[in-house]
Amino acid sequence: MSTSSDDLFKNVISHAKEYGFVFPSSEIYDGLSAVYDYGQYGAELKNNLKTYWWKSMVQMNENIVGIDSAIFMHPKIWKASGHVDGFSDPMIDNKDSKKRYRADQLLEDKIERYGKDGKTAKAERLQADMEQALKDENLPRLRELIVEHEIACPVSGTRNWTEVRQFNLMFSTQMGAVADDSDVVYLRPETAQGIFVNYLNVQKSGRMKIPFGIAQIGKAFRNEVIARQFIIRMREFEQMEMQFFVRPGTQMEWFEYWKETRLKWHLALGTDAAKYRYHEHTKLAHYADAAFDIEFEFPFGFKEVEGIHSRTDFDLSQHQKFSNKKLQYFDPEVDPKTNKPYGNYVPFVIETSIGLDRMFLLTMINAFEEEALGNEETQDSRTVLRLHPCLAPIKAAIFPLTKKDGLPEKAREIMDKLKIDYNLVYEEKDAIGKRYRRQDAIGTPFCITVDHQTLEDNTVTIRYRDTMAQERVDAGELNKIIGGLVSWSNLLG
Amino acid sequence: MSTSSDDLFKNVISHAKEYGFVFPSSEIYDGLSAVYDYGQYGAELKNNLKTYWWKSMVQMNENIVGIDSAIFMHPKIWKASGHVDGFSDPMIDNKDSKKRYRADQLLEDKIERYGKDGKTAKAERLQADMEQALKDENLPRLRELIVEHEIACPVSGTRNWTEVRQFNLMFSTQMGAVADDSDVVYLRPETAQGIFVNYLNVQKSGRMKIPFGIAQIGKAFRNEVIARQFIIRMREFEQMEMQFFVRPGTQMEWFEYWKETRLKWHLALGTDAAKYRYHEHTKLAHYADAAFDIEFEFPFGFKEVEGIHSRTDFDLSQHQKFSNKKLQYFDPEVDPKTNKPYGNYVPFVIETSIGLDRMFLLTMINAFEEEALGNEETQDSRTVLRLHPCLAPIKAAIFPLTKKDGLPEKAREIMDKLKIDYNLVYEEKDAIGKRYRRQDAIGTPFCITVDHQTLEDNTVTIRYRDTMAQERVDAGELNKIIGGLVSWSNLLG
Repeated sequence: MSTSSDDLFKNVISHAKEYGFVFPSSEIYDGLSAVYDYGQYGAELKNNLKTYWWKSMVQMNENIVGIDSAIFMHPKIWKASGHVDGFSDPMIDNKDSKKRYRADQLLEDKIERYGKDGKTAKAERLQADMEQALKDENLPRLRELIVEHEIACPVSGTRNWTEVRQFNLMFSTQMGAVADDSDVVYLRPETAQGIFVNYLNVQKSGRMKIPFGIAQIGKAFRNEVIARQFIIRMREFEQMEMQFFVRPGTQMEWFEYWKETRLKWHLALGTDAAKYRYHEHTKLAHYADAAFDIEFEFPFGFKEVEGIHSRTDFDLSQHQKFSNKKLQYFDPEVDPKTNKPYGNYVPFVIETSIGLDRMFLLTMINAFEEEALGNEETQDSRTVLRLHPCLAPIKAAIFPLTKKDGLPEKAREIMDKLKIDYNLVYEEKDAIGKRYRRQDAIGTPFCITVDHQTLEDNTVTIRYRDTMAQERVDAGELNKIIGGLVSWSNLLG
Repeated sequence: MSTSSDDLFKNVISHAKEYGFVFPSSEIYDGLSAVYDYGQYGAELKNNLKTYWWKSMVQMNENIVGIDSAIFMHPKIWKASGHVDGFSDPMIDNKDSKKRYRADQLLEDKIERYGKDGKTAKAERLQADMEQALKDENLPRLRELIVEHEIACPVSGTRNWTEVRQFNLMFSTQMGAVADDSDVVYLRPETAQGIFVNYLNVQKSGRMKIPFGIAQIGKAFRNEVIARQFIIRMREFEQMEMQFFVRPGTQMEWFEYWKETRLKWHLALGTDAAKYRYHEHTKLAHYADAAFDIEFEFPFGFKEVEGIHSRTDFDLSQHQKFSNKKLQYFDPEVDPKTNKPYGNYVPFVIETSIGLDRMFLLTMINAFEEEALGNEETQDSRTVLRLHPCLAPIKAAIFPLTKKDGLPEKAREIMDKLKIDYNLVYEEKDAIGKRYRRQDAIGTPFCITVDHQTLEDNTVTIRYRDTMAQERVDAGELNKIIGGLVSWSNLLG
């Protein structure tokens, strides 16, 4: 990581806190590891990202609907999905410090150190050995590698290690107070299963015909051992997932369709295309027959923001088996090869899955700029969030030039006409330049100043965030000007 | 409960399932007790209720902002709030059946039976005795009453009872994989504490001045023993809460303000005012100096849908004590009595808290009608959801009269112009009357039919859900007609 991108990341984190976007959770109690709260502007930005996704997926597509399933689900679901047995990380404890680590993480840190020390051959060999051990799920081999490469505990400094064991990432709790009947339930580690177990309910009650999709936004939970990089990897996070049900044999064409469609969704926000890339999974999960990630170049390197996976009929078939309920769809369309209806089958599924918190961070990083200025506005630089107007938490700020002469009343009169349609702020304190800076810092696209001339001719000054250009317009035109730039048709049209 | 209101409730539940509003969670696995999923129309209706609340609270009020804090919080927070020690129900086990019951619930069932049997005096005495025991937190006395009144276990039929014990309603889980450092964390039982612990972060980063409010919508969890009446009492549910921070001594005027303002919010939806009433708490929670519920008349009687509580400075003072951080606000305004600024103090808090799922159920029940018809549309009755157009999951349905002659293409052309702004459905199957019925059943305010005349003069038939009236309008007018009725200004203006 170069110093400047390191700085950028730190600056975004501190900006997010200072301006009410993201606060560490439970901060007055010294925080709760890997959990964050969204502040007053963060909550609005996050809601706008949700709206953008929901509108593009559900509202714009005739054959996609959205649901909202609960976090709690029947525990058998996670047995069927493979999470109870397979959703785990290889962990190792240091006997002296009693600290626990992810075995592969210890090895990766070592590989990075070899790389920095110029020991490229060693780094490459360890990388290959580790990958082989992970592929084989060979836990003793992982321990051997830790011992061979003389990896010490960062806390105790010793190499006194336990065996490597699998540690499940699902949070569990006890439901029900009845003494003999209290069940372990899990906090869902992904929203997808809530879609799978409801797919026939939705299909039947909504009379959906294949191909069709079910979308969902919601919280998921993973007891990550190594939770780091701010909101990139959290223990409580939010997903936006869509499962698209298709006729078996057609999954590859739909996979290609969604792969392209989803990248377009990201690029519509105006992000530099060079910052995105596809990453093809070479090692596929047990349920997938194809998988691509859409990666974004964060200051610390390319990271997944969205996965597009061809999940086959694995999940539905598993639920069919574990629930003893038929989960088949009846397809009335005629197969041209046989001249008969396709009939009953378990659909194949293409999944698109975004981490909303990563998408949020990406949006903040992308928008954040510390811009050097000339003398135009008496200051030498400004921090500006160049958010797409549709995503901006506040659409416009209304400023009376001074606190007297009826200007606050006039400003509020103008505000009242706009506030049903747009999220606004009103500020009357400090010099106008300073008020502009505060709105730049939270990404407000328009500042509207009400002055003495407004009282005479009902015109106001509108100042644009990105260009800092100002123009005098009739107050009656504001709805049209603001509406034009913040309309969802700019992103969806 | 009269038979007809009993029927109404049953009909709404089955309608909710059949038409994709609410499904029992994990249904293919025979369900998960007291947990429900929102289907494709339920999710939209729920989102619209959230939007209505968020817009009225956050967007329309200059001095209220919204946040989104995590479900996981530092465990000390629940110690400070009193939930670890006090958030519990008195439970008793039957030794033969091994079933556990809420002691007060057993007593209440008995009181109800006395009432039905005409033993009014006995019912009243037991009611008073029970209330006294609950007030004194006298658990042995609760057991005595169960024994004295010869209450038997509904399962085993015996009176072989254990002691009464307190059972905490919070779900707990273990966070962190580190062997010696794994912490118990709770799933929040209310969203309010997420606001309290962030109040200074929000106040400072948002430069808020008292009085100001912080709003939040989010999930909360309670391990209810007796979870029943559909989505009225669930183990996982959603709250819409707002905490309003005021100067000590002014809390009663703000309490009155919010009590009235919140009832107006409910009534703006057009609900019969006679179905709402205030209920004043006579037994106040330890943190409150005044509390009113807004109750709605469900088919099974009046039930709380929203609470307005004057929470004093209890929560903030407790967090100050438990976190060792000053949680004071500096009030620069000049006190006319002393001619000095009010200075530093811990604000008092007025809370408004709605159960979103109850609000959802209320909305469904209120909108549901089985209407007898004349011969107007060839059928004798229809089921119609008379939802406020702002809340309707689907704003308009587009029907080509037939599947040929280019009508589907024309219908989709009209749809494409509307779908960025409104959630629409397209249906081409079945007779028009049958399609109308399906849209009535999910509350769609407009059906738009495209016929052969449309191809000639670009006019369509618009049919209104409530009146079933039809009129011929220019397709270019649709945006204005629909927009007029579904605009939020109808509710917020």
